[in-house]
Amino acid sequence: MGPTTRNDGRSPDQLREVRITRNWLDHAEGSVLVEFGKTRVLVAASVTVGVPRWRTGSGLGWVTAEYSMLPRATHTRSDREAVKGRIGGRTHEISRLIGRSLRAVVDYRALGENTIVLDCDVLQADGGTRTAAITGAYVALEDAVSHLRALGALKGEPLKDSVAAVSVGFHNGVPLLDLNYEEDAAAGTDMNIVMTGSGQFIEVQGTAEGTPFSRDELGALLDLGTAGCAELTRLQRAALQ
Amino acid sequence: MGPTTRNDGRSPDQLREVRITRNWLDHAEGSVLVEFGKTRVLVAASVTVGVPRWRTGSGLGWVTAEYSMLPRATHTRSDREAVKGRIGGRTHEISRLIGRSLRAVVDYRALGENTIVLDCDVLQADGGTRTAAITGAYVALEDAVSHLRALGALKGEPLKDSVAAVSVGFHNGVPLLDLNYEEDAAAGTDMNIVMTGSGQFIEVQGTAEGTPFSRDELGALLDLGTAGCAELTRLQRAALQ
Amino acid sequence: MGPTTRNDGRSPDQLREVRITRNWLDHAEGSVLVEFGKTRVLVAASVTVGVPRWRTGSGLGWVTAEYSMLPRATHTRSDREAVKGRIGGRTHEISRLIGRSLRAVVDYRALGENTIVLDCDVLQADGGTRTAAITGAYVALEDAVSHLRALGALKGEPLKDSVAAVSVGFHNGVPLLDLNYEEDAAAGTDMNIVMTGSGQFIEVQGTAEGTPFSRDELGALLDLGTAGCAELTRLQRAALQ
Amino acid sequence: MGPTTRNDGRSPDQLREVRITRNWLDHAEGSVLVEFGKTRVLVAASVTVGVPRWRTGSGLGWVTAEYSMLPRATHTRSDREAVKGRIGGRTHEISRLIGRSLRAVVDYRALGENTIVLDCDVLQADGGTRTAAITGAYVALEDAVSHLRALGALKGEPLKDSVAAVSVGFHNGVPLLDLNYEEDAAAGTDMNIVMTGSGQFIEVQGTAEGTPFSRDELGALLDLGTAGCAELTRLQRAALQ
Amino acid sequence: MGPTTRNDGRSPDQLREVRITRNWLDHAEGSVLVEFGKTRVLVAASVTVGVPRWRTGSGLGWVTAEYSMLPRATHTRSDREAVKGRIGGRTHEISRLIGRSLRAVVDYRALGENTIVLDCDVLQADGGTRTAAITGAYVALEDAVSHLRALGALKGEPLKDSVAAVSVGFHNGVPLLDLNYEEDAAAGTDMNIVMTGSGQFIEVQGTAEGTPFSRDELGALLDLGTAGCAELTRLQRAALQ
Amino acid sequence: MGPTTRNDGRSPDQLREVRITRNWLDHAEGSVLVEFGKTRVLVAASVTVGVPRWRTGSGLGWVTAEYSMLPRATHTRSDREAVKGRIGGRTHEISRLIGRSLRAVVDYRALGENTIVLDCDVLQADGGTRTAAITGAYVALEDAVSHLRALGALKGEPLKDSVAAVSVGFHNGVPLLDLNYEEDAAAGTDMNIVMTGSGQFIEVQGTAEGTPFSRDELGALLDLGTAGCAELTRLQRAALQ
Repeated sequence: MGPTTRNDGRSPDQLREVRITRNWLDHAEGSVLVEFGKTRVLVAASVTVGVPRWRTGSGLGWVTAEYSMLPRATHTRSDREAVKGRIGGRTHEISRLIGRSLRAVVDYRALGENTIVLDCDVLQADGGTRTAAITGAYVALEDAVSHLRALGALKGEPLKDSVAAVSVGFHNGVPLLDLNYEEDAAAGTDMNIVMTGSGQFIEVQGTAEGTPFSRDELGALLDLGTAGCAELTRLQRAALQ
Repeated sequence: MGPTTRNDGRSPDQLREVRITRNWLDHAEGSVLVEFGKTRVLVAASVTVGVPRWRTGSGLGWVTAEYSMLPRATHTRSDREAVKGRIGGRTHEISRLIGRSLRAVVDYRALGENTIVLDCDVLQADGGTRTAAITGAYVALEDAVSHLRALGALKGEPLKDSVAAVSVGFHNGVPLLDLNYEEDAAAGTDMNIVMTGSGQFIEVQGTAEGTPFSRDELGALLDLGTAGCAELTRLQRAALQ
Repeated sequence: MGPTTRNDGRSPDQLREVRITRNWLDHAEGSVLVEFGKTRVLVAASVTVGVPRWRTGSGLGWVTAEYSMLPRATHTRSDREAVKGRIGGRTHEISRLIGRSLRAVVDYRALGENTIVLDCDVLQADGGTRTAAITGAYVALEDAVSHLRALGALKGEPLKDSVAAVSVGFHNGVPLLDLNYEEDAAAGTDMNIVMTGSGQFIEVQGTAEGTPFSRDELGALLDLGTAGCAELTRLQRAALQ
Repeated sequence: MGPTTRNDGRSPDQLREVRITRNWLDHAEGSVLVEFGKTRVLVAASVTVGVPRWRTGSGLGWVTAEYSMLPRATHTRSDREAVKGRIGGRTHEISRLIGRSLRAVVDYRALGENTIVLDCDVLQADGGTRTAAITGAYVALEDAVSHLRALGALKGEPLKDSVAAVSVGFHNGVPLLDLNYEEDAAAGTDMNIVMTGSGQFIEVQGTAEGTPFSRDELGALLDLGTAGCAELTRLQRAALQ
Repeated sequence: MGPTTRNDGRSPDQLREVRITRNWLDHAEGSVLVEFGKTRVLVAASVTVGVPRWRTGSGLGWVTAEYSMLPRATHTRSDREAVKGRIGGRTHEISRLIGRSLRAVVDYRALGENTIVLDCDVLQADGGTRTAAITGAYVALEDAVSHLRALGALKGEPLKDSVAAVSVGFHNGVPLLDLNYEEDAAAGTDMNIVMTGSGQFIEVQGTAEGTPFSRDELGALLDLGTAGCAELTRLQRAALQ
Repeated sequence: MGPTTRNDGRSPDQLREVRITRNWLDHAEGSVLVEFGKTRVLVAASVTVGVPRWRTGSGLGWVTAEYSMLPRATHTRSDREAVKGRIGGRTHEISRLIGRSLRAVVDYRALGENTIVLDCDVLQADGGTRTAAITGAYVALEDAVSHLRALGALKGEPLKDSVAAVSVGFHNGVPLLDLNYEEDAAAGTDMNIVMTGSGQFIEVQGTAEGTPFSRDELGALLDLGTAGCAELTRLQRAALQ
C-alpha cells in the first residue's frame, strides 16, 4: 500500500494509539478503560452467582453485554435513551454484537452457573466504538474470570481463546484500518471484523454505504482486518501481563 | 459437493421453492407475497409525496423499511411487540438491514422528494425471513417506483440495480444454501449475503454461532451465496415481466 | 326494502362475498384467512397447555384474543403500534370485544386447563374488520378445539354454540347489511351485532355517529343483523365440513 | 314487575339516589360532582380557545373526554395507570364512549374553534361509573358552554339536545335499572344506554356476560333504560336551573 | 411582624382555613379530605396484609405514598401522566417526600408484616399541596392503623409520633406562613418543613428560587414553620377525637 | 468536636480528597472529571445556540442538568434506566436539584438566548454523588460560559456567583462533613447543602432517615456545611486558574 496521508497522519494499515487501562473502577470485578485514539470506552465486568431463570439448573453460565453512549460522547449532544424511554436500534444492535462476540470463546460449562455482564459505556466517540468495546471487554472478561477462579467458583477454564475487533473500510479507493469518525463518515464500504486470538473469524459485517463492493475488495479488507486484530491481540496480552 | 441429504430433500446448493406474488394487496402502491418454502413474508410498499423533515428541501427522496413478525408466525406463539410496548433488538436490527440494503441501489436525486416505506410482515417463519423480505421488498419497490413514474413524479430513474439476498451456513461441515429453520438452528456458522443484480456485495454478515470460521470457509460461503443471489435475481426478473 | 344501488352493486340486505380458508398457516393449531369482500383477516389460534397464573388450579380453561392491523392494511399507511410504543384505544377495544364474544360460547370446565389465544391480524381493511375477525375466529377456535380433542386433552365439549358477527347501519335512511369502508364512513348510525348460531345475541353495539336513532330504527337494524348472522353461521358450517 | 328485593332495597326500576353538585371546583369552566348512590365522579370541563392542529382553520370546535379512576376508588386498591406507564383497554374504551356520547349533541360550527375537554375522575366506584360520568359530564358541558357564551365566543347554540346514560341488566331473570357493583358483577346480561333528552338513542351497548339474550329480553332492557334516562334528564334539568 | 396585607387578608403568620374531613370514602381503611384554603387533597389509606417481596419474612411492615394531581386541579389543564406514559420528576419527588415523612414516625416492627399505601390525589391546587397531603395523610394513616388494631393485626403501637407539614417563604422581604399559589409563585425563597407532633424536624427543604438566602433568613423561616406545624398538630388531634 | 476516627481516617470536619480535572473530554464546550474520594463524576457542558421553544424570543438563556449513574458505578450492578424504559424518581429528583442550584447564580439576560446543558454521569459512586456533581458542574459551566464569551455570544456576565455543595450528617451523635457511602448509609440525619461562593444558601435539604432532629442539631450541620462549601469554593477557584 502506498503512502496515503490520513487526516491524523497514520499510514493506511496503522492502528490509532491503543491504550488499555485495567482496574479503572474500584467496585467492578473487572474493568477497563480502552482507548482507540480519541475513542474512549469504559468497560465494567460484573459477576453474579447464578444465571437467568431460563438457564437455571442447566449447569451452564451466561455472558451478556450492554452498550451505551454518554450524551456528550459525540460532537453534538444526543438525547439520553433513558429520557426518550426507549433504546434505539443502533444501541440494541451493538449490544447484541458485543455479547455474541465474547460468547463465541466462552465454555459455558467451565464457567459454571455464573453470569458476567459487560457494560460498555462510551465516554467519548471518534469512530470504532464497537470494536474498541469488544477489544476492551475481552480484557475485562478475563479479569472477571480470574476473580471467579480466585473464589474457586469455576468448573474449568471458561475462555477458549481471546477476542479482538477492528474496523476497516475503503476511502477514496484505499483500504484503511481502524477508521476514525471522519474516515468512517466518508467511507464507501465499512466492515467490522471480530477475530479470535488464534486468527479465526467470529463476525464479519460488511456494508456498502455508497457503492457496492466486489469480491476482491472484500478480500483486501479481510487481509487488513486480520492484521489489525493480530496486533490488538498482542496489545491485549501485554495489558494482561 | 457431495449428495448430502437435507431434511427437506434439497441438495446443498439448492434454493427452496421461491414464489413471488405481486399485487397481493389492493391499496398499496406495490405489494408482494414472497415465499421461500414455508417462509412467507408480505411486503407492502407505501408511497408518500414529501420526505421526513430533516430532508425537506434537499431535492432527495427517502426509502426506509420496517420488519415485523406476526405472533404465530413461529412454531410457538410470541408476544406482540406492541403489547410489550417496545421493539426488540432483533426487529430493529433486521429493519435497519432491509432499509440499508435497498437504499444501496437507490438514486435519491432521481427519486425526487418522495418517500417509499417498505413494510415487511412475516406471516409465517421457517428460516431466512430477512433474506426473503429483502428479495421481495425489491420487487415491491420496483412496483412503487413504476407508480411514481406513471404519476410523472420522478426526476430520473431511481433504481440503479436490483437487490436480492440469501442465507448460507455450515452444517456438519457442509456449506448449505438458503437455510430453513432447522438447519439455521443447527448451523455452526451462519451468513446473510445481500447482492446487487450485477453481482456486487451490499452486505455480508457472517456470525460464528458455534466454532469460529476460517478464511477458506468464509470463501466457500461467499461462493454459494453469490450463486444463490444470481438465481434469485433471475426469479425477480421473471416476476416483474 | 327497495332496490337501492350500493357502491359495490349489492342489495341492502346482502353480504359481501365471504371466503373462509382454513389451515392457511402450517404451525398454528387452527388458522383461517377470512375475507368479507376486500376485508382480509388472518386468524391464528394458538393452543397452550395451562392457564394464566391467576386461574391455575381452577380446572377452568381460558380463551383470549388480540386484534391488530398491518400498517398498510388501510388506504393510507398508519404507524405501527409497536413503533409508537403503545396500543391504541380502538385496538384494545376490538381485542376485548372479540375475546368476550368467543368466551360467551365456551364451557371453561369442558376445555380443561388449556389456553387458546386467537390472533386476528388484519391484512387488508375495507370495513367490518372486527365482525370478519369474530366470524373467522370462531372457525379457528373450532379447529383448535379439535386439536385438543385429538390429544385427549378436553374434559368435555367446550363449544356450546357457534358465533358470527356482522355490521349494519343506516345510510341515506336505508338500513344496510355488512358495510364496506365507504358505507361505514358515511353511515349516520352504525351497529355491530354478534350472535350465536342458535340466534341469540352476544353483543349489540350501536352508535349514532351523526343523528341519534329511534327505537324503530334500532329494530330495523336488529332484523337485518339477525338475518346476516344466520347466513354467516351457514357459511361457517360449510367451511367446517 | 313484581316486588323484587334488591340488595339496597330499591325496586327493579328505581335509580339510586342521584346527586348533581355543580361548581365543585374553583378553577374549571364547568365542574360537577355527580353521585349515583355510592358511585362518585368528579367531572371538570376545561375550555380552551383553539382546536387541535388537524382541525385548525375548519371553523369547527372539538369536544373530547378522559376517564380515569383513583387507585382506591374500588374495594381493593389498583395500581395507577401512570405508574404502569400505559392506559388500560377499559379506560380507553370508556373515555371514547363518553366523548362520542357528548359529541352526538354538539353542533361544532356553533361551538366555533373552541375545545372543551371533559375530565371524568372516579373518586369512588360502586357500579355505573361510565353512565354517571356521561350524565354528569353533560351538565358540566352545559356550564362550559355558558362560559363561552358569556365571553361572546360562540357562533350559535352548540348544544342540540341533552345527554343522559344509565345501565340496565338481567339478574336472576329480572331486568334491573342502574346496577350497583354487586348487581353488575352478578348480572348475566349488562347494557349501557345513552340517550338524548328527547328520547332518541345515542349508544346501545349490550353484552352477554353469561347466557346470550333473546330479542325480547333486549326489548325489556331498552324499555327500562329509556325510562331511566328520562328520569335522569329531569334531574339534570333541575340541577341546571 | 407588622400588619402586612396578604392577597387573601391573612396576617403573615396565619394558616389558611384548614379542614380535615375523615371517612370521605366508603371503601378505604382510612380516608381524609384535607383542605388548606382552596387546596383540596383526597388521601386514601389502603391496608394490605403482607409486605413487598424484598421485605417478606423480616417481621417488618411497610408504608409508602403516591401523589398525583387531577388534570384540572390547576388554573389551566395539564395532561395526565398516564396519557403521557411517564411520571414527571415533580410527582416522583413529592411522592418520595410524603412516604419518607410518614415513615419517620413508624415503628415497622410494631406494624407487623402489613403494608399501608397512602394515595394523595390533589383535587384542587392552590399552593401547598405537598404539605396539605402530608398533614392529611398522617390522619388517614392513624385511621388505617386503628383498622389494623381492631383486627388484632398489630405487634405493638406502630406510631411513635404524629407528623404535620407546612410551607413558608419570603415575599417582599416578609416571611409568610402557608403560601397560596400566588404567594408561592412570587416567593424568592420557599421552604417546606415537616415536623413531628413533639416539635422535632423530619424534613427541611429550602430553595432559593430567586436570591440566595442568609443564615438569619433561614432562622426566621424555621421559626415560622415550627409554629405552623404546632397549630396543624392541634388541628389533627381535634379531627381525630 | 473530639478526634472521632472515621472509617477512612478523616476528622469529622474534613473533606475527602477533591480532584477537579478540567477538559477531560475533547468535544464538550466544558468538561470536568470531579472526584470526592472514590466518587467520580464526569460533567459535560454542552452549549447550543437558541433556547427551548417556550422561551424563544424572550431574550433569556437557559441552563439545565441531567444526572445519571452508570450501571456498575455502585457496589452491585443496577439495571440501566434506558433498559427499564423509565427514569427513576431519585434520578429525576437529583437532576432537578442540580439544575436549580446552578440556575440560582445565572443571569439569563446576560446569557442571551443560549442553552447550556450539564450532563453529570456518575462513573463511580461512594456517597455524595449529587454534591460532587454540583461542585463539578459549576466549573464546567464556567468553561462553557468562557466558550460563549470567546464567540462574542454573551450579552453580559451571566455568572453572578459560584456554586458548591456538600453533604453533612449525624453519625453516632457526631456531625460529619462529606459522607462517604458507608457513613451515608449509617447516618440518622442527612443533609445536602448548596451554597454560593459568597456564603449564602441556595438549597438546604435535610432528612431524618432515623430519628427526627432538633433545631440545635440542624444548626450544627449548617455550620459544618458552611465551612465545607467555603473550602470547595477555594478548590474550584484553584482549578479555574
